[in-house]
Amino acid sequence: MQNSQSQRVLWLLEELEVEYNLVNHTRDPKTRRAPPSLQSVHPLGKAPIFVTADGKIIVESAAIIGYIIRTYDKTGKHASNDVVREETLSAFSGSSLHLWVTMMLTFDLITRNTPWPFSYATKGLESSLKKRMFDAELAKSLEFLSTELGDNEWFNGAALGRPDILLNYPIEQIIQRGYVDVDKDYPKIGAWRSRIVNSPSWKRGLEKGNGFDLLNV
Amino acid sequence: MQNSQSQRVLWLLEELEVEYNLVNHTRDPKTRRAPPSLQSVHPLGKAPIFVTADGKIIVESAAIIGYIIRTYDKTGKHASNDVVREETLSAFSGSSLHLWVTMMLTFDLITRNTPWPFSYATKGLESSLKKRMFDAELAKSLEFLSTELGDNEWFNGAALGRPDILLNYPIEQIIQRGYVDVDKDYPKIGAWRSRIVNSPSWKRGLEKGNGFDLLNV
Repeated sequence: MQNSQSQRVLWLLEELEVEYNLVNHTRDPKTRRAPPSLQSVHPLGKAPIFVTADGKIIVESAAIIGYIIRTYDKTGKHASNDVVREETLSAFSGSSLHLWVTMMLTFDLITRNTPWPFSYATKGLESSLKKRMFDAELAKSLEFLSTELGDNEWFNGAALGRPDILLNYPIEQIIQRGYVDVDKDYPKIGAWRSRIVNSPSWKRGLEKGNGFDLLNV
Repeated sequence: MQNSQSQRVLWLLEELEVEYNLVNHTRDPKTRRAPPSLQSVHPLGKAPIFVTADGKIIVESAAIIGYIIRTYDKTGKHASNDVVREETLSAFSGSSLHLWVTMMLTFDLITRNTPWPFSYATKGLESSLKKRMFDAELAKSLEFLSTELGDNEWFNGAALGRPDILLNYPIEQIIQRGYVDVDKDYPKIGAWRSRIVNSPSWKRGLEKGNGFDLLNV
């Protein structure tokens, strides 16, 4: 599905040079949410969905990415040598950071879609939550990630691993939606993001994918 | 911290009969959020935080629970024999179900804390989101989990595993906050929940813990 978490899976498949068939799904033009066509592939009806070579259907990005790395990384360099850290960063990406970013996105959408005069209340609410909670939570999260990345090129170490692929999506949301000036305030994460978007595998994934404009969700 | 995700970690420690030291933290009485004392243990300042026997600090429930099972399950019965399914259910609990439940909780709190006349707009907003999105997402999620559980006692199979421990929290929120009548609409999940709250290990964890009233957050 365009403008979605699917893009990071294409990036990984390209990085590992896996051959794959891509089936595009288009967000419902009215709700901008997942279309009913995805529900015919898996009852949860969310993107991405991965179908293995022997026909097994996998949902949830963390499980899809884990499977792809275990199955197709012949070098072993994308595996982690610290399972606790790998699980911590993966869970942090999916549960904590993703939660805050989705909450911010939800309030953006609510504010955009609320008619006057109710928009007065929803805009005030969003700005109050941003001041009291969202900004502080994002700062704490990006501070933590900056420390975890340190002077490594990737969160996984010398080569990218599951946390890098997972963190790509919430951090792209933060950057594309302008929630934080990552290059200025968290230059190590800014450099990590540049490495991704300038890599040939990311660019190949983008070309094959269905678009990745996170302002347009 | 009372009324928090920490309770499921106590349950697991009791189930595996691990000896542990418990340090209680109390929610900030004003914001009802994590107190600053947690930040002195780990910069993310969230509960639960687990300190290993050799002093390593672990955050994120999924990583903590993975570590405890790998380290203290001498029988091996709490491990999973299907890593894809284990990762899918764990990610589903932490990213998808947790997200919807937290979103609903957030709107509950907003509605409760918004003064009149703005409460008119926030109540309308909550009820509209509930009708258009939250109820459908919860139904789809619980349907999926019911199918995954099937006729097994535990999501992990014959013995409980990481997905059971993780799913406990969002499902307790759904039940305690009355979002869905789980016993009536999803009896398999209702029976799974009864097995948990009637188990000696859950009860021992509750006694040692700091309270687990999810209406009081």
